[in-house]
Amino acid sequence: MTDSVYKVVELVGTSANSWEDAARNAIETAGRSLRDLRIAEIKKLDMKVENGRVTAFRSRVQLSFKYFNE
Amino acid sequence: MTDSVYKVVELVGTSANSWEDAARNAIETAGRSLRDLRIAEIKKLDMKVENGRVTAFRSRVQLSFKYFNE
Amino acid sequence: MTDSVYKVVELVGTSANSWEDAARNAIETAGRSLRDLRIAEIKKLDMKVENGRVTAFRSRVQLSFKYFNE
Amino acid sequence: MTDSVYKVVELVGTSANSWEDAARNAIETAGRSLRDLRIAEIKKLDMKVENGRVTAFRSRVQLSFKYFNE
Amino acid sequence: MTDSVYKVVELVGTSANSWEDAARNAIETAGRSLRDLRIAEIKKLDMKVENGRVTAFRSRVQLSFKYFNE
Amino acid sequence: MTDSVYKVVELVGTSANSWEDAARNAIETAGRSLRDLRIAEIKKLDMKVENGRVTAFRSRVQLSFKYFNE
Amino acid sequence: MTDSVYKVVELVGTSANSWEDAARNAIETAGRSLRDLRIAEIKKLDMKVENGRVTAFRSRVQLSFKYFNE
Amino acid sequence: MTDSVYKVVELVGTSANSWEDAARNAIETAGRSLRDLRIAEIKKLDMKVENGRVTAFRSRVQLSFKYFNE
Amino acid sequence: MTDSVYKVVELVGTSANSWEDAARNAIETAGRSLRDLRIAEIKKLDMKVENGRVTAFRSRVQLSFKYFNE
Amino acid sequence: MTDSVYKVVELVGTSANSWEDAARNAIETAGRSLRDLRIAEIKKLDMKVENGRVTAFRSRVQLSFKYFNE
Amino acid sequence: MTDSVYKVVELVGTSANSWEDAARNAIETAGRSLRDLRIAEIKKLDMKVENGRVTAFRSRVQLSFKYFNE
Amino acid sequence: MTDSVYKVVELVGTSANSWEDAARNAIETAGRSLRDLRIAEIKKLDMKVENGRVTAFRSRVQLSFKYFNE
Repeated sequence: MTDSVYKVVELVGTSANSWEDAARNAIETAGRSLRDLRIAEIKKLDMKVENGRVTAFRSRVQLSFKYFNE
Repeated sequence: MTDSVYKVVELVGTSANSWEDAARNAIETAGRSLRDLRIAEIKKLDMKVENGRVTAFRSRVQLSFKYFNE
Repeated sequence: MTDSVYKVVELVGTSANSWEDAARNAIETAGRSLRDLRIAEIKKLDMKVENGRVTAFRSRVQLSFKYFNE
Repeated sequence: MTDSVYKVVELVGTSANSWEDAARNAIETAGRSLRDLRIAEIKKLDMKVENGRVTAFRSRVQLSFKYFNE
Repeated sequence: MTDSVYKVVELVGTSANSWEDAARNAIETAGRSLRDLRIAEIKKLDMKVENGRVTAFRSRVQLSFKYFNE
Repeated sequence: MTDSVYKVVELVGTSANSWEDAARNAIETAGRSLRDLRIAEIKKLDMKVENGRVTAFRSRVQLSFKYFNE
Repeated sequence: MTDSVYKVVELVGTSANSWEDAARNAIETAGRSLRDLRIAEIKKLDMKVENGRVTAFRSRVQLSFKYFNE
Repeated sequence: MTDSVYKVVELVGTSANSWEDAARNAIETAGRSLRDLRIAEIKKLDMKVENGRVTAFRSRVQLSFKYFNE
Repeated sequence: MTDSVYKVVELVGTSANSWEDAARNAIETAGRSLRDLRIAEIKKLDMKVENGRVTAFRSRVQLSFKYFNE
Repeated sequence: MTDSVYKVVELVGTSANSWEDAARNAIETAGRSLRDLRIAEIKKLDMKVENGRVTAFRSRVQLSFKYFNE
Repeated sequence: MTDSVYKVVELVGTSANSWEDAARNAIETAGRSLRDLRIAEIKKLDMKVENGRVTAFRSRVQLSFKYFNE
Repeated sequence: MTDSVYKVVELVGTSANSWEDAARNAIETAGRSLRDLRIAEIKKLDMKVENGRVTAFRSRVQLSFKYFNE
């Protein structure tokens, strides 16, 4: 039915290797609830830094879930 | 009590007819949880297109709900 | 004369039916002062909600008026 | 093939009745080139005004076309 | 583990005294779920007004929670 | 009547003590015209500085007034 | 007194020659009310075009006036 | 007919003298296709620099053309 | 000659591997028309998702082409 | 002389008490270099959180310094 | 070598005549450190006003310098 | 001490391989001054292009340094 309601959510995934892996982590963790999801947009990229070295890449991803009353 | 805490949520409603109906669908689906809601803002309008024709109007609506620890 | 000065103003119109009517209300209320106006831009769309139902659509419209010293 | 290149385009459609019709005009005029298009986003809504009355609604729509070298 | 997934949330706190107290209310209400939170950003400040007088300060705060499938 | 037209206005209030007082000054100066105002948003915070010291806090507040033709 | 309230206003000036003259026209038309104004910011630059030629430059300028109840 | 469709385009013009000339170059190069254009907005101003000296002013101008299927 | 006119274009490239490859695809497809291009800016990154898994990375790239009348 | 060149800088000040004190700390630390500074704008407000409690308020302040070649 | 690191800086130049001269002042004051600079973007234009008259044009210019540890 | 003052800085790093390496170059060049840095945000991604091919990826990174009077 075309009149479903969706909820927009932002998740932050993390990876030691790349922003691609960080985004994939966010999406695949949420994956079971995402059957209708077609597009996931990047809203922010950043890095964790310790002692002047990059230790992790983080991607903030905007997704939408089917909505059920909370 | 004036010190309640609210949670800001974005819902996407859909309608074959208009953005007004799409927004109304989003709000009225969420309606039971919205007793204190007074204003709902539009954050994005878009359309679904199939074979070069518009098949649905979608409204992304920003609402706030009373917050309970998750 | 091409050197007239204009003042940019934002008005909010309201309608129980649609954002188009809400915007038209804003413009036509201001109408008598708007002889030179050609374009009016939408800056925000929102809704009034009561008891979980949409009771009014509101359009914030940006217009320009001929300016006279205040 | 997943590696196609698309070009992002903004079109402005006009209607005497509603922003929905204005957007539909923009999309359906472009329709023959849009076989892969799934989503079209609204980037701006405005109105033409003559003698203090609204004479047309305009919707600026962002689409993407399959890209061929220009 | 560095690959946890977080969910970005916006809460609105209220106080009769100051935006600092309003923000603190939002954070401390959510506090039990926030063990890893280090930074909370202000996204919007506003006021409730009654009869032309300010009755409450409100702070919209962006936080992140550890994410569990919904 | 739900079809009133409002005008959006930005006022800047000033205080030697805090941004809360600066905002309150802006609103309460305008207060007599604000019977329907429920929410006033902060659009900008800044400070006046003299000889390297802060001498005043300023809050730019967005309000809406009932509109009468100008 | 430091607690005066100011009103933020946007004016559009026009000139056949340059955006500097267009902005100067906006400010100097408003000049008598602007005794405390120190800085005026440009918010938008555009041009009027007729038959494919530029006929005027326009500058939208943001100013602040001392506020008196309307 | 009010239902024409327009395409929004951004052109960058260049001039050794001023941003006004740079914008005029962009518009007048495109001029033959612009019979209905009334307003052209500036989207960005920048400069080319060589050996620490400004060698050209550039204006990015947003225009709209009548749209024909591509 | 410094007075050439350029057209700003946004292309979306896709890759199963990375946003770098997606962006490179967009640029190299357009390559023959890009002799003067020096810088290409990323405007948006997103992903295609199918059955809760990332199937492609997409990069929206802003480029400029030498302009010829359309 | 009106042709001095200034450098725009953003500083982050911290306080356990309020955003006003945090901003004042940033400005007064920089004070000796700020003889011509008249206005300092807030660009961001946030908080440090430890164990679900606010431990510090932080204000990011935009200032300008007289510029000397680096 | 392609792996140099640059620092982004914003300078404000001033001129009694035009925003072009104001921007040129900012760049040419910084010129000796700018050997690799190719493009300088305008981030803000404003004016100083005294007694209701424009006394100076100011351009805020974004540049990049080769970076050395501070 | 919680009342230290920080300076926000944007650096641009470059790499022939990826935006991750470009960002890492920016941060690790600055590393010795960054002992307290925890998070570095990406503000812009772009590419250098020569003869229609990508020759370098560039990441603009926002960092903060402990501030000492300049």
